Amino acid sequence: MTATKPAALAALQPQRVLDRCAALAQLTEMDGGLTRVFLSSEQREANRLVLGWMEEAGMRARVDAIGNCVGRYEGEAPGLPCLMLGSHLDTVRDAGRFDGMLGVVGAIECVAALHATGTRLPFALEVVGFGDEEGVRFGATLIGSRAVAGTLDPALLDRADAAGITLRDALAGFGLDPAAIASAARAPDAVLAYAELHIEQGPVLESAGLPVGVVTAINGGNRFQVEVTGMAGHAGTVPMGLRRDALTAAAECALAVERVAAAQAEVVGTVGRIAAHPGAMNVIPGRVTFSLDVRAPTDEKRLAAIDAMRAQFAAIAARRCVDLSLAPLWEAKTAPCAAGMQRQIAAAIHDEGVRVHHLPSGAGHDGMALVDLAPIGMLFVRCAGGISHNPAEAVTLADVATGVRVLLRFVLAFTAPVHS
Amino acid sequence: MTATKPAALAALQPQRVLDRCAALAQLTEMDGGLTRVFLSSEQREANRLVLGWMEEAGMRARVDAIGNCVGRYEGEAPGLPCLMLGSHLDTVRDAGRFDGMLGVVGAIECVAALHATGTRLPFALEVVGFGDEEGVRFGATLIGSRAVAGTLDPALLDRADAAGITLRDALAGFGLDPAAIASAARAPDAVLAYAELHIEQGPVLESAGLPVGVVTAINGGNRFQVEVTGMAGHAGTVPMGLRRDALTAAAECALAVERVAAAQAEVVGTVGRIAAHPGAMNVIPGRVTFSLDVRAPTDEKRLAAIDAMRAQFAAIAARRCVDLSLAPLWEAKTAPCAAGMQRQIAAAIHDEGVRVHHLPSGAGHDGMALVDLAPIGMLFVRCAGGISHNPAEAVTLADVATGVRVLLRFVLAFTAPVHS
Repeated sequence: MTATKPAALAALQPQRVLDRCAALAQLTEMDGGLTRVFLSSEQREANRLVLGWMEEAGMRARVDAIGNCVGRYEGEAPGLPCLMLGSHLDTVRDAGRFDGMLGVVGAIECVAALHATGTRLPFALEVVGFGDEEGVRFGATLIGSRAVAGTLDPALLDRADAAGITLRDALAGFGLDPAAIASAARAPDAVLAYAELHIEQGPVLESAGLPVGVVTAINGGNRFQVEVTGMAGHAGTVPMGLRRDALTAAAECALAVERVAAAQAEVVGTVGRIAAHPGAMNVIPGRVTFSLDVRAPTDEKRLAAIDAMRAQFAAIAARRCVDLSLAPLWEAKTAPCAAGMQRQIAAAIHDEGVRVHHLPSGAGHDGMALVDLAPIGMLFVRCAGGISHNPAEAVTLADVATGVRVLLRFVLAFTAPVHS
Repeated sequence: MTATKPAALAALQPQRVLDRCAALAQLTEMDGGLTRVFLSSEQREANRLVLGWMEEAGMRARVDAIGNCVGRYEGEAPGLPCLMLGSHLDTVRDAGRFDGMLGVVGAIECVAALHATGTRLPFALEVVGFGDEEGVRFGATLIGSRAVAGTLDPALLDRADAAGITLRDALAGFGLDPAAIASAARAPDAVLAYAELHIEQGPVLESAGLPVGVVTAINGGNRFQVEVTGMAGHAGTVPMGLRRDALTAAAECALAVERVAAAQAEVVGTVGRIAAHPGAMNVIPGRVTFSLDVRAPTDEKRLAAIDAMRAQFAAIAARRCVDLSLAPLWEAKTAPCAAGMQRQIAAAIHDEGVRVHHLPSGAGHDGMALVDLAPIGMLFVRCAGGISHNPAEAVTLADVATGVRVLLRFVLAFTAPVHS
């Protein structure tokens, strides 16, 4: 076994990882930028590419019942439990090209190196490209990984996108059977652990001068849809003192979110979407909807921040004589990375000759769902300026090379069971 | 002449005015509400109805080169200069059914009463149903009345709507020749004056307990498109202190607009539209656009308020490290109603046995454009709660009856030249 390690590591082609991220970035619904949402025609094209790369890397590849790409590379004997690797293939709107894709393509590269050197391990490897992590289309994240973990709420099938198409109809339109989504769930004894390589999407590794780091936990988060209802009226004739303007009320709420989050270290709160109705220049908005996203490194901090925001919203609504309602869309508890996974990833970083740095993840990841199936671990790769969810997202070839080498070292040395 | 006055007044059918407003309210692009924009298929249907009513009232009716409905009722001899009556047929989004329409239908009712009683006057009457006053589609108001006044900027032909269709293409699609719009302009010596009946759209007449009032001036206004550019980023990983969030910056600006306007009596400022980009729940908005509408009873107050808003915007942008630009879309100076028109309208109100009340108009009206063509005057009719630009817009049959009677009294007694 030891003899094959250098050979497999030497077989890695990090430039091919970047080239494949670039190829996936061409599959977009928007001019001059990258947007690829769950169960879209662009996802169909992305799946086609990824399945081809998986097969080229010696895997048996298929699309599962929720639309994920799944590739399997058998171990020393067929049918062994697997170490699952992967990340997601969907994007936010006007996205960067590495968020998600780098982890899928990087994992395929590791398998390709094993395949090229004839290396078989005492466990199977599976690589999954999840169809939905970002939640752009249906407002609920992790649909792909929750289906694999067996925790997908079937009620989500009735959730509609902005065009009124339900998840059920979107699955059928993608050629999948909505009644069969439970078959995407994996048996816990078939999955030894889940490991994901991902760009950091934050500024910590860059400021530490390190190409990679070990993730300690994925921060928990909540999302809400907030609706403010005031009274529409003519912008020229209703005196300022008689208005019940839903937009200025919402503006105060957005500033309250900012203030509450800023008051607690590591808590973040974001209003990413806003819409005013009826939405004409000469009409006082009678109704405004906006989204609220809150995340924190501990569940206690997160829930305390949400309580404080709710209290400020209520005070603003009362003072301005508007109605305000807050509908929960999504909640995720903090997902800790298993101690055994952290140790094994740290050992791989050390073996690569890089100083080991631990950090939490401020962003959500598929591991938040897969933690219900198996022990999870994550390896972060430095990205430029901490910028993500933005076309300016960037990584260096050298960092990608270090990332896939560390991931392959971890895979080659992986031992189960993983202790948490 | 005196003998025919009671006959014409008795021929008015105010219920028909309400019925016709209801018929026009059915011509809408939205389910369960009223939205009818310039050069739409709904305008085509509205024009068809209005042209029919004009012909029924003894007028020669046509659609002019910009899409306005124009009906002409000859005076005691053919070809005399006209007293022009009218209002607009377009609506805001999710509008009431009286704003604009009541003035068109009410003017037709007055001509119908003259026609039914064989009454001819020493001047012609024209009724115009303007195709665009609200400016919803192209973001520039008064397109119909500016064309009639001969002040329409031909550069507007290149202005595009939200779907990217230019005014030029929309005119062609409506069956009109964009190269011929100058022919909609009227010669000043052909128009003696312009008088408009309109709902008040504010609470003044209701609080004074009066069905009608004489307008003194139409307040000036400005509209701007404001763009805030910060830096998009991941909602989970960018610490609050490192954000350049375009949405929270815009929220501060909206509150600054409210604060500046509220500090000066009779100044109003409104943010009616807002959009965040990229507009995903888990992305910090990198760019936000919003509309700004400012109005005031004097040009001095208006310009001072805009200066104060600009200064606060600049301070907010500097403090938050975002870029902010303010593009002027529209400006209208205060349009005074001619003293002679105010006197003649006041006399008609007095003759109807109603106490005469003068008030300014907080809303914009077609008179703002027509003041460049002829002396203007306006008659306001009380509306419930001052509510307008809202489906709850309402008038009573009794007030409509008083309104059209006063308008007809004014028409019957009208004398030119009008002294300002």
